[in-house]
Amino acid sequence: MLSTLEEADRRHYFHPGTHAFDHASGALPPLIVDRASGIRLTDVEGREYIDGFAGLYCVNVGYGREEIAVRIAEQCKRLSYYHSYQGAGHAPAIELSQRLIEQWAPPGMIKVYYGMSGSDANETQIKLVWYYNNILGRPNKKKIIARDRAYHGSGIVTGGLTGLPVYHANFDAPFDRVIRAMCPDYYRRPDPAMSEARFTEQCVAELEALIEREGADTIAAFIAEPMNGTGGIVPPPAGYWPAVQALLRRHDILLIADEVVCGFGRLGARTGCERFGIAPDLVTFAKGLTSGYAPLSAVVVGEAFWDVLMRGSREQGMMGHGWTYSGHPLGAAAALANLDIIEREGLVQNAGDVGGYLLERLRATLGTHHAVGDIRGVGMMLAVELMRDPAARERFPADQRINARVVAAARERGLLIRALGTDIVGFAPPLITTHDDADEIVSRMAAALDEVLS
Amino acid sequence: MLSTLEEADRRHYFHPGTHAFDHASGALPPLIVDRASGIRLTDVEGREYIDGFAGLYCVNVGYGREEIAVRIAEQCKRLSYYHSYQGAGHAPAIELSQRLIEQWAPPGMIKVYYGMSGSDANETQIKLVWYYNNILGRPNKKKIIARDRAYHGSGIVTGGLTGLPVYHANFDAPFDRVIRAMCPDYYRRPDPAMSEARFTEQCVAELEALIEREGADTIAAFIAEPMNGTGGIVPPPAGYWPAVQALLRRHDILLIADEVVCGFGRLGARTGCERFGIAPDLVTFAKGLTSGYAPLSAVVVGEAFWDVLMRGSREQGMMGHGWTYSGHPLGAAAALANLDIIEREGLVQNAGDVGGYLLERLRATLGTHHAVGDIRGVGMMLAVELMRDPAARERFPADQRINARVVAAARERGLLIRALGTDIVGFAPPLITTHDDADEIVSRMAAALDEVLS
Ligand SMILES: Cc1ncc(COP(=O)(O)O)c(C=O)c1O
Ligand SMILES: Cc1ncc(COP(=O)(O)O)c(C=O)c1O
Repeated sequence: MLSTLEEADRRHYFHPGTHAFDHASGALPPLIVDRASGIRLTDVEGREYIDGFAGLYCVNVGYGREEIAVRIAEQCKRLSYYHSYQGAGHAPAIELSQRLIEQWAPPGMIKVYYGMSGSDANETQIKLVWYYNNILGRPNKKKIIARDRAYHGSGIVTGGLTGLPVYHANFDAPFDRVIRAMCPDYYRRPDPAMSEARFTEQCVAELEALIEREGADTIAAFIAEPMNGTGGIVPPPAGYWPAVQALLRRHDILLIADEVVCGFGRLGARTGCERFGIAPDLVTFAKGLTSGYAPLSAVVVGEAFWDVLMRGSREQGMMGHGWTYSGHPLGAAAALANLDIIEREGLVQNAGDVGGYLLERLRATLGTHHAVGDIRGVGMMLAVELMRDPAARERFPADQRINARVVAAARERGLLIRALGTDIVGFAPPLITTHDDADEIVSRMAAALDEVLS
Repeated sequence: MLSTLEEADRRHYFHPGTHAFDHASGALPPLIVDRASGIRLTDVEGREYIDGFAGLYCVNVGYGREEIAVRIAEQCKRLSYYHSYQGAGHAPAIELSQRLIEQWAPPGMIKVYYGMSGSDANETQIKLVWYYNNILGRPNKKKIIARDRAYHGSGIVTGGLTGLPVYHANFDAPFDRVIRAMCPDYYRRPDPAMSEARFTEQCVAELEALIEREGADTIAAFIAEPMNGTGGIVPPPAGYWPAVQALLRRHDILLIADEVVCGFGRLGARTGCERFGIAPDLVTFAKGLTSGYAPLSAVVVGEAFWDVLMRGSREQGMMGHGWTYSGHPLGAAAALANLDIIEREGLVQNAGDVGGYLLERLRATLGTHHAVGDIRGVGMMLAVELMRDPAARERFPADQRINARVVAAARERGLLIRALGTDIVGFAPPLITTHDDADEIVSRMAAALDEVLS
């Protein structure tokens, strides 16, 4: 069974984010998952793992939730699909829209458009922002500021917004309307003596200089994760968001909050916007919206922005944008069942509590390790940054792929975590993780670290 | 119930392909679908409709298939999600890949990458084609030929490939690497006396002139639907595909077959490629792959092309491309159950049989109507083109939206069909449609036509 599956896998399955040759040749060790429940996965050979990254930080309520399966199946029997073009719809998408606006989105939001992925939702955002400025008669106000080390997707446009070189190489990305601001990573501040307040000032000054250099009248929007994820799990320095928002408002630059990872409790708040006091014009949701049970993303639109879209349709007719599966009924049903669980079980709160405990335990256990430079996190989104010599701030050579080796050793011990960049190990377990689970995660991580860097 | 739903809908649900103001103001009549079974839908007010367009030509096996619901639910309980990055996977995606290559894709294909929509799959195609030419050291061979009236999606890039102005307006589309070939619409040939063979020659000559004008060494690929869909359901003229393929091969231009609509039986063949004798380098599937039960698309890659991707990874490392939900287990489970049904019930064959019958009945019933210019179709993809004066080839003024009025009248009679462009009425019922259903579709269409154009 395994060997046949493995062979078919190598021969015919073109995986995302995978080294094509190493996979096809078998050099990459396979991980064929058979089943999962709670925070634990079992592969086809019967090995069990704790999923310390919740899939790709999406399985917020954990695996194998019977009630989501039941809701999906019921919806599937009742209405497996209908499109939402030309005003058509169905109850699950309508109810979800209302619930997102009333209970989950930041204040001031009014409308919800659906896609299937974080990438397509961010692409919709860019389309909407360009449309908006065309309707407002500002055809030159089109550039998008995205941050270094951001992750906003891997489409041609969204991969360009992403600020990680591996998503650009050989794809002729980024496109010409992207301009890049710095990643506000206080740990990697240029001068170790710089205070956090001073570092924030520097980030904001850099952004202001960028805006002035490019011209605010050429810049449509600033897109950012409330807290950087794939670029290394980097909490924003104190004061960053209030200052950035004031600057953007002064220059009439829209703010798109990419809540794909932060949304739905991961940071111990409903959203990253709530956690950091952000009032965006547009919000992108995905991942935690369904806990990965179905592909669903959402573009949430603020009231003032929506008014311009309505004006656009009156002046220019229907806007030509849509996906066949926008508002898919199974996705909406999965989201509704998922939100029931998050609300009923208090998972936003749990993410804050257990996330805080996990951070504390990581610090207590690994904080004095000779190759650990930083341990940080907010809620259930945490990182350990490795350093050859933390005191001298000397990094490991990138080609050692030191974090990948730690992640591989953790996998051998039944813990799935994620290598980010070349130095950072990321943790983002399901929001149902308990204190005991957290202890287990820390002990497996400690053993892995000791094996690789004893 | 209805009024609350309708109100929430207008207030909070941002629909795809919908006039924003008319929807929010209530000017657009709502269609809130409650349930569906076979080829029939029921709305929340209890009105029943025949779905003569299979959702958006995607519900190939019809609605309410218990066995798909069961397979999805079982998969959901067993493994609701896991990602496929870095070589990870699960049986449903692996088995589906093998089955697509061995049973459904055209010969010569080897690998399957998954997305969630036709748009994202076509976007992946463009990324792959650019990557391919970068790896081959041909950085200037990047333009994409797309046809007038094509539909390839509505992303920033895919909306640019789409050859319909409403998908470009106010989005700054198309992007600069798109070049446009003509739509091979024999019915709208410039000179009514021109033979089909002569018209084909003209299409091919036009394409050749385009290639020569732009330079073959600047052109990466030609993307096309085997048979044009959303642009008006236009069968290719005899001889078109063999001649186009010979021309592309001569100029080393890749052929991407967009099978999103044609694939999985709609044309009475497994694929449009099979139906028209096309041997593509890359194939895009979506829609019929799951019959809309779950958002899933596939990028199918030919062997020679794949070799270049492997070379790319050996020389340059991992290719940075992927979606969180690539190869989603519920989508793969839905596809496997859907293919079981198509194969077991002989739906490819049925699409040819009943589609042929439907065409014949449309012609017999409407062929002499004074405002019908053309009735055409292949399999379960058919169109009636309206004309103010067919003999004089005089079209209705576009602002009369004559086809939309016929479609609205059909809806009043319980038949959902689709207005394409300003003159064309499209039919694309589920592949399970029977001869009796076909009679019912024709009689409702005839009544609608008589009401609007008596
Ligand atoms: C912040 C953020 N935005 C967007 C995306 C893209 O989402 P998807 O992979 O569903 O396209 C991701 C994926 O990890 C993400 O982390
Ligand atoms: C031929 C073709 N390609 C691509 C697409 C885009 O598919 P999606 O709406 O799933 O993005 C469509 C949608 O109708 C289509 O007809």
